[in-house]
Amino acid sequence: MEYSKKPLDGIVVIDFTRVFSGPYCTMLLADLGATVLKVERKGIGDDSRAFLPVEGGESGYYMYLNRNKKSIELDLKDQQAVEIVYRLSKNADVIVENYAPGVADRLKIGYEDIKAHNPDIIYGSISGFGQTGPYRAKAAYDVVAQAMGGYMDITGFPDGPPIKLGASVVDAAAGLYMAFAVVSALYQKKSTGAGQFIDVAMMDTVIAMMENFVVMQTFGQMTPTRNGNRNLGAAPFNVYKTKDDYVAIAVANNFLFEKFCPVIGRPDLITNPLYADNKCRKANEDSMDAIVEEWTLQHTTEEVCKLLDEAKVPVGPILNLQQVVEDPHVLSREMIVEIDHPTEGKVKVPGNPMKFSESKIDRFVPSPLLGADTLDILRDYAGFSDEEIRRCEQDGVIVQRDYAGAQTRKL
Amino acid sequence: MEYSKKPLDGIVVIDFTRVFSGPYCTMLLADLGATVLKVERKGIGDDSRAFLPVEGGESGYYMYLNRNKKSIELDLKDQQAVEIVYRLSKNADVIVENYAPGVADRLKIGYEDIKAHNPDIIYGSISGFGQTGPYRAKAAYDVVAQAMGGYMDITGFPDGPPIKLGASVVDAAAGLYMAFAVVSALYQKKSTGAGQFIDVAMMDTVIAMMENFVVMQTFGQMTPTRNGNRNLGAAPFNVYKTKDDYVAIAVANNFLFEKFCPVIGRPDLITNPLYADNKCRKANEDSMDAIVEEWTLQHTTEEVCKLLDEAKVPVGPILNLQQVVEDPHVLSREMIVEIDHPTEGKVKVPGNPMKFSESKIDRFVPSPLLGADTLDILRDYAGFSDEEIRRCEQDGVIVQRDYAGAQTRKL
Repeated sequence: MEYSKKPLDGIVVIDFTRVFSGPYCTMLLADLGATVLKVERKGIGDDSRAFLPVEGGESGYYMYLNRNKKSIELDLKDQQAVEIVYRLSKNADVIVENYAPGVADRLKIGYEDIKAHNPDIIYGSISGFGQTGPYRAKAAYDVVAQAMGGYMDITGFPDGPPIKLGASVVDAAAGLYMAFAVVSALYQKKSTGAGQFIDVAMMDTVIAMMENFVVMQTFGQMTPTRNGNRNLGAAPFNVYKTKDDYVAIAVANNFLFEKFCPVIGRPDLITNPLYADNKCRKANEDSMDAIVEEWTLQHTTEEVCKLLDEAKVPVGPILNLQQVVEDPHVLSREMIVEIDHPTEGKVKVPGNPMKFSESKIDRFVPSPLLGADTLDILRDYAGFSDEEIRRCEQDGVIVQRDYAGAQTRKL
Repeated sequence: MEYSKKPLDGIVVIDFTRVFSGPYCTMLLADLGATVLKVERKGIGDDSRAFLPVEGGESGYYMYLNRNKKSIELDLKDQQAVEIVYRLSKNADVIVENYAPGVADRLKIGYEDIKAHNPDIIYGSISGFGQTGPYRAKAAYDVVAQAMGGYMDITGFPDGPPIKLGASVVDAAAGLYMAFAVVSALYQKKSTGAGQFIDVAMMDTVIAMMENFVVMQTFGQMTPTRNGNRNLGAAPFNVYKTKDDYVAIAVANNFLFEKFCPVIGRPDLITNPLYADNKCRKANEDSMDAIVEEWTLQHTTEEVCKLLDEAKVPVGPILNLQQVVEDPHVLSREMIVEIDHPTEGKVKVPGNPMKFSESKIDRFVPSPLLGADTLDILRDYAGFSDEEIRRCEQDGVIVQRDYAGAQTRKL
């Protein structure tokens, strides 16, 4: 099978990351063609090999995030292993890590350490709060960033508690921001020849993805808070009950309102001064929403969507994960792809959302078994001779793993 | 004042985008040094010039998203204006648009049209559902993508309605994905010389930022749904009431549980078989959460955070926007920056979350007044002579705007 050329073909990344922002970042780089050498803890591997969903074998979480990567197994507390990292770094373009700030330096694999061996390295550090500032040393999880960055205070109902988005969206966003920054630095390096250090913090990325909420505060002189599924500036814009479920409807302006009213059998509303424009509709939002829900309750979600789709009014059902992974549009967009894993068989994972006309992202190599590529990486990317590899093995720095049996699939 | 070199210095982007995903994408490119030529509707400009927050003058929404860009004012239904676009495109590296699929082609500024004038252009199209697939023509807003991509079904409480994240996170993510794709294509072009078309859809990006929720469905044989602020695999992991507010606590594993229990005065829990590991704690999550909240209710949020921070247990207050924009850490990270706008004065907007050691993102030129750069852009980027510019003016293709009075600030 022949694969198309990819944007990052030829780039070598050393990957010290663990769940979730870091592996997501290096997955994006690997999807786009970079060779990612994932350094895993000797004997244990990435924690996420045990994360849900897992049933005895390899974790679905791990298989998804580590596709297209190679695994080298090292104990970074062993000085000989660190020397291996230095030799690898001479042939690498990029390093990404997401330890707590300070840990990489303690392990002697921080930016300054690596720079001594490769002065032009691009070195990215992802963390909860960044490498600087008063909260630098604070422990972080996605939910803490969602809470402290401002997302949770604006999510949920006015009379209810703050709510986080179900998935760890800030981890993903921080990984994506770092991937963007790394490629931007690679682009710049084509002219300057120089590398640099990049610091991305989860809390920062929330503030950077706040739409107009920050300027509502700083310029609009109001503190936006939880608003349910309503919109700050437009109505009717909400989630409504239907005969069988819910439906999201977004009538953002008068142009859409004029299309919407006839569909719900209320063309009179268009000229009703109570609902003349968004300002009026926001002032009378309770009665506006009641009128809409009176209509949606008489129809199934499918019927509501069909009627409003025909009128080109933004509308959508609330799909659950089962519906999402089976949705004909999702499948036609190749947003669910199948990976054939040596021990787990065929596994379906999210595809890549960047559809390049000339650089199709069509290569999804299964995630590596722990340390499966250690010897190859030492030979091909660190220039180790057979003799040097033998010595590393004798000293217990590396383990030779025999995964021939891995071809046997789970039933 | 001297500015540092930026990763995308020298890149020229023609920007046909309107709120929110597109302008966010081109803002990211402009922040990193690209010259962004924003094409605005003649006489009206970007819709978001009227979006909240606004009080008569320029909109905070517009000022935030269009910093560092130049404005050219054109009526794309005028064939002479389209010819200007073709001449501009010869000197451009990138085009970004987020019209509904098909509109750019109808305006004769689609990929094939532009390619005829610049075969190596990188052309990015952002849309709700993409340029292909059965939902291609469907109207979209962020909330529709959150609903149909699966975010809303997993956000909220099990006994409550689906909820969207307050801000338009999917718009932002789609813009960020496109920025990453564009720079990756620019990087590839350095070797191949060739441009290409890139298609990014909002619904796709939700599926691509789903953490382990897709594999829970496809591999874990369960359909994850709304779970409040709890975690699928760990406990205690929730938002708890305190004496004065709420607090987010994330005890993700036994290592953290052993640090956590002594702080809440319950070291006995560590060896209690009901709470021995995450599996047990998830099975007994109600009683686990009750024990934690019994403790948090005796303290203020600040006290809880102080105690758990000392023990290195992930914890955070639920900050509102006012607290976020005044937070000492946020300020020290330069995540709120001040722009001095010619008519609105000093406005605070979110900064850039990518901290490059050698390419500091420290240039925040105010957003342009409508058409302020039309003549300069024609001269400098399309090579128009004074005579040609004069003819365009006479034909009514362009308007010469006198913004000398714009130096007068609002009181």
